[in-house]
Amino acid sequence: MKHQNSPGIPTFVLKIKNQNFMEVKAFQDYYPDDFNHCYGCGGLNEHGHQIKSFWDGDVAIAEFEPKPYHTALPGYVYGGLIASLIDCHSTGTAAAALYKKENRPMDSEPPFRCVTASLHVDYLRPTPLDGKLKLEAMVKSIDRKRVTVLVKLFGGGELCATGEVVAVAVGEKWVKRWIK
Amino acid sequence: MKHQNSPGIPTFVLKIKNQNFMEVKAFQDYYPDDFNHCYGCGGLNEHGHQIKSFWDGDVAIAEFEPKPYHTALPGYVYGGLIASLIDCHSTGTAAAALYKKENRPMDSEPPFRCVTASLHVDYLRPTPLDGKLKLEAMVKSIDRKRVTVLVKLFGGGELCATGEVVAVAVGEKWVKRWIK
Repeated sequence: MKHQNSPGIPTFVLKIKNQNFMEVKAFQDYYPDDFNHCYGCGGLNEHGHQIKSFWDGDVAIAEFEPKPYHTALPGYVYGGLIASLIDCHSTGTAAAALYKKENRPMDSEPPFRCVTASLHVDYLRPTPLDGKLKLEAMVKSIDRKRVTVLVKLFGGGELCATGEVVAVAVGEKWVKRWIK
Repeated sequence: MKHQNSPGIPTFVLKIKNQNFMEVKAFQDYYPDDFNHCYGCGGLNEHGHQIKSFWDGDVAIAEFEPKPYHTALPGYVYGGLIASLIDCHSTGTAAAALYKKENRPMDSEPPFRCVTASLHVDYLRPTPLDGKLKLEAMVKSIDRKRVTVLVKLFGGGELCATGEVVAVAVGEKWVKRWIK
């Protein structure tokens, strides 16, 4: 499987703290095509959320603007979307952290493909539906190919949910077993 | 806030083990209107999943057929949908369990409205995208208004994920605080 940038995926011009305006590619823009169809984060899934994650120092950040119908209570975001954002932001962060640990760029071979082993979300308060949600992730630990990521999700400037995700990098053998 | 059945929500004719064919209403069909807009389970959310949960003895069951674009890896369901189904099936089960504990029907007053305090999902294997997903939930414990629910999610006849959700019933004061 070739590890190449998918056609049609734009790079982003993003204001990242301490970096001013610059053109950066998201973690997800480096995903191999076979891992780029995810409804949450795949650039090749035209129906999906297509979340984009970036380093800001040691913190991985992402933003997402929910649609008006992503409701739980009227005016607030449903928990499944929050779980989905935390999940996908974390698997992206886990892959990026593994490249960083090996001190090699994200377009180098072999690619890291991370899947979720477990997801935990604590919902602290209802998350406002209007405006952007902001996610911040930090790597708690890396144990070989097993990365634990802690996430904070903010809405309306308030911390609304926290998450802990265990992501595991899978190899070619695993990919060949599952992907037809 | 009136507790009434929302117009336009059909009852279901369902084959439930030991009950033969019968017309039953889902837990979600009893939700008060203000709790019936959820993308995962609200009957009033025309864009959403509208999952329906039912008792089969002491187990709460639900089925859901993913769309072709709900992918993680090609051919498998993305984790955010699995989390969402486990979440919404559990909050419905929690509400139903609270009525059952008080030995009163689900259309009696006052209604139980449950929100998610925490969600945990263990992803055991990739979940096939074709065919229906089946969920089974059991109540682990009820501590006043706090219900812990354990969920199994099956795809292609295999156990693909397990979940544990802590749902909390909120009162009128909470609802008035948050819902505009």
